[in-house]
Amino acid sequence: MPVLKLNEAKSTLIKKGVSRRLVHTSNLMLVVIDFTKGPWSVPDPPHSHPHEQTTYVETGEIIFFCEGEPDKRLSAGDMFWVPSNKSHTIQLLSTSARLIDSFNPIREEFLS
Amino acid sequence: MPVLKLNEAKSTLIKKGVSRRLVHTSNLMLVVIDFTKGPWSVPDPPHSHPHEQTTYVETGEIIFFCEGEPDKRLSAGDMFWVPSNKSHTIQLLSTSARLIDSFNPIREEFLS
Repeated sequence: MPVLKLNEAKSTLIKKGVSRRLVHTSNLMLVVIDFTKGPWSVPDPPHSHPHEQTTYVETGEIIFFCEGEPDKRLSAGDMFWVPSNKSHTIQLLSTSARLIDSFNPIREEFLS
Repeated sequence: MPVLKLNEAKSTLIKKGVSRRLVHTSNLMLVVIDFTKGPWSVPDPPHSHPHEQTTYVETGEIIFFCEGEPDKRLSAGDMFWVPSNKSHTIQLLSTSARLIDSFNPIREEFLS
């Protein structure tokens, strides 16, 4: 059945205060990331990946940092996107937040 | 700037009570669909597309119908996915709902 109910989803703790749940097709991955234990005094270290990314801010408030672009403060309902191999990160401004990330191709390393 | 603020986003009315806002990269499209004027007494007609799809139910309650699968009632936080060319649709059970759809490749017909 191509459905994942919230209360049946396996949640993976990435690091303290950050966990993810995900579904995927062959080439598309949807990742729900829950942040707690904010706000952060500094951003996460920037990272990049060949996968294209889109993100929808479901709840919370963040600063989005993207290589070569001005920093942008985002909150619920806002969206951002990241081209392949572009360095980016966020800083959590609120106590908690939920981001809805999508990737193409899928992040194989998230499946292990 | 790879950001779309909610209050600056162009909203496209698809049909009465259904509108969308979107961002995309080369191969990945994020579409926020807002439904009002529910509940619906019947599902939308089923449709299919070669694009793979994932969906996150941000708010509201729906039934998700997918070819060859049992119908599934979904609410906030639940996810579904649709393989290429698989027939599917939804029925809105609540007054309003917001779905976060992603597609690979991008839905070129949504850009016109």
